[in-house]
Amino acid sequence: MSFRRDDAMAMDAADPLRHCRGRFFLPEGVIYLDGNSLGALPMAAVGRSREVVEEEWGEELIRSWNSRGWIDSPQRVGAKIAPFIGAKPHEVIVADSTSVNLFKLIVAAAGLAPERPVLLSEAGNFHTDLHIASGAAELARLRLEVVPREQIEARLGAETNLLLLTHVHFKAGFRFDMAETTAKAKAAGARVIWDLSHSAGAVPLDLNGSGAELAVGCGYKYLNGGPGAPAFLYVAEHLQERLLSPLRGWMGHASPFAFTDDYVPSPGIARFLAGTPPILGLAALEAGIGAFEGVTIGQLWAKSIRLFDLFRALVEERCPALTCISPVEPERRGSHISFSHPHAFELCQALIAEGVVGDFRAPDVIRFGLTPLYLGFEDVWTAVERIADVLETERWRDPRFAVRGKVT
Amino acid sequence: MSFRRDDAMAMDAADPLRHCRGRFFLPEGVIYLDGNSLGALPMAAVGRSREVVEEEWGEELIRSWNSRGWIDSPQRVGAKIAPFIGAKPHEVIVADSTSVNLFKLIVAAAGLAPERPVLLSEAGNFHTDLHIASGAAELARLRLEVVPREQIEARLGAETNLLLLTHVHFKAGFRFDMAETTAKAKAAGARVIWDLSHSAGAVPLDLNGSGAELAVGCGYKYLNGGPGAPAFLYVAEHLQERLLSPLRGWMGHASPFAFTDDYVPSPGIARFLAGTPPILGLAALEAGIGAFEGVTIGQLWAKSIRLFDLFRALVEERCPALTCISPVEPERRGSHISFSHPHAFELCQALIAEGVVGDFRAPDVIRFGLTPLYLGFEDVWTAVERIADVLETERWRDPRFAVRGKVT
Repeated sequence: MSFRRDDAMAMDAADPLRHCRGRFFLPEGVIYLDGNSLGALPMAAVGRSREVVEEEWGEELIRSWNSRGWIDSPQRVGAKIAPFIGAKPHEVIVADSTSVNLFKLIVAAAGLAPERPVLLSEAGNFHTDLHIASGAAELARLRLEVVPREQIEARLGAETNLLLLTHVHFKAGFRFDMAETTAKAKAAGARVIWDLSHSAGAVPLDLNGSGAELAVGCGYKYLNGGPGAPAFLYVAEHLQERLLSPLRGWMGHASPFAFTDDYVPSPGIARFLAGTPPILGLAALEAGIGAFEGVTIGQLWAKSIRLFDLFRALVEERCPALTCISPVEPERRGSHISFSHPHAFELCQALIAEGVVGDFRAPDVIRFGLTPLYLGFEDVWTAVERIADVLETERWRDPRFAVRGKVT
Repeated sequence: MSFRRDDAMAMDAADPLRHCRGRFFLPEGVIYLDGNSLGALPMAAVGRSREVVEEEWGEELIRSWNSRGWIDSPQRVGAKIAPFIGAKPHEVIVADSTSVNLFKLIVAAAGLAPERPVLLSEAGNFHTDLHIASGAAELARLRLEVVPREQIEARLGAETNLLLLTHVHFKAGFRFDMAETTAKAKAAGARVIWDLSHSAGAVPLDLNGSGAELAVGCGYKYLNGGPGAPAFLYVAEHLQERLLSPLRGWMGHASPFAFTDDYVPSPGIARFLAGTPPILGLAALEAGIGAFEGVTIGQLWAKSIRLFDLFRALVEERCPALTCISPVEPERRGSHISFSHPHAFELCQALIAEGVVGDFRAPDVIRFGLTPLYLGFEDVWTAVERIADVLETERWRDPRFAVRGKVT
């Protein structure tokens, strides 16, 4: 192929999102292809984190709950996430982790149709979703059924209470058609809970337009909220007053500071709050979301497609040992590209040593996140060159790359 | 009384914990008596927060999960909390919020005695505990019974599954005798869940020695972990393998990175983890706990008693309008002192304007936290002088002090 570094540089020069790269700290010598696991550090998060710790906590202390808007931050940051997912501002709140939020929605929503005993999900769904579902199902008197993707539609029926799906699959990136799947579930009388962890901030989402009623998602991937950032939770307006969170903490109370023994749920989405909001995490997440200023999801997605297509074409030409397992059609995929390789683990470690940071997913997948906000076309070109080099020289065979850490 | 500022200064000069004050940022002109609600900023948290954001997230990115010990931080920080509460290092873990952790323990422990239908708690217990208990009880098929403190003992019986108590009461500071209450519950065949939010880091605690099996507590009060810091959870060693968290997130899985559909709980306390740990909050909390370096709980508690006694004596002499509602005997109280006043809200606001930061608790209580690590005797003297002045001049009657914010 005649595509050269110069061509990639020309694509960068013409990229309407190129200026956004400067909104992030990207370490020297590293091509970061793991923003779908932990988004890069937004420059604004540096100042904001210092401010929240040193001024707000340090100087203002307890008064910051009012004077610096801490108490409203779950709603405020939720409202800022809303446009990324096609929701109304008062339909989204930031709280807890994706796992905990998923639990809340499963248990709360199951009660709407007590005559339907099945919680349906996909085999190979992100495992924390299945684990949380198993615990929630027991308590909500549901039977968890986990079936391969191609059987889901056929299994929807009079017994289905809830269908729990991850919109973009964490491994190969297959994406559900949200509107179509939601409509099919509704036709069977079931509700869908969508996990948007690998979608929000990169892939077009229209929860309202798709008829989606319930969703959760991650704050630390494409939304760049920092390690272990709090997660978000969406409940369509029309359902909010009908659901009661099983985690009835004081922050979800109608009057948290009235200190009454009886629980009275807050009106609206705030009833899905439980304990005291994690202010340091919320502040960083708010800065992360701020890094999207002036950018549309349409622009992000258009660039994601081009990054993917270039990555795939270059790998096809330069790295015959890698098999792309991600869908080729843009409308069927997310914003990461995955390949299988019999020694994906060692390859991934060797690439990290070369400054190309992707991640390994058991048993044989190497995955690269294509974050349109800060990744460039030259990054893709250089990354594939290095991958090709590591494969050709078989440097991944170095025994040090076989050592497994706790997080792999 | 002949006690003067000089006397307070002499007490400070002789205070063996005086040097610890320098470990905290205490804003100029403020006497901070709300460390039982949000602990002051430890100096070390400033550098540590910058490091975790700017170096670990910014430079090392995803690699920090292994290279900077992020993945172990729930266990590591839990082990550092263990000595404060009389637990073994592997009996404590940091995760989620106090509310969420309480939910986990109620639902998990209820299953150990399914024939016992009652979850017993105290009327006027911190309300999030009662709210969480109400939701957990429904799911665990328990009946929540909330009775006044003086009736608890008599209500323990063959029906009692769990007794949920806050060790030090948030309002007046009454403290349970943990060993005695635990023994009485055990004699009735019931288990106790202790909420240590107003104890840990100030009041002597010996969970192991008291026979306590289950506990939760707050990270942002006396442990100085910052606003919305993650909370801790304790399960006695002998119970750990018998309990299953209802919130079965991937971090509590035996092999979180094996990505298997089936949930296999981690051995030990780690099974009580759910989602991805909140790293920014954990880092600040770890720095907060570091501020106790070289200090024993015995020293802290001895100083707390002296701060309390001085505060009470000075108020008695100088502020006849205030009625102390906290217990006089040290063994029956925590590390805060509370007073009733018919205009406690306005008084609290007026005092904040004068730089004396305590807090209001509905309907008529003003509460002052006595944090032995950074509060001095001169602080107490000055605070009471200002309280006396505000009361004598009735400056709290200024209408601006009647305006209620969201957090009061």
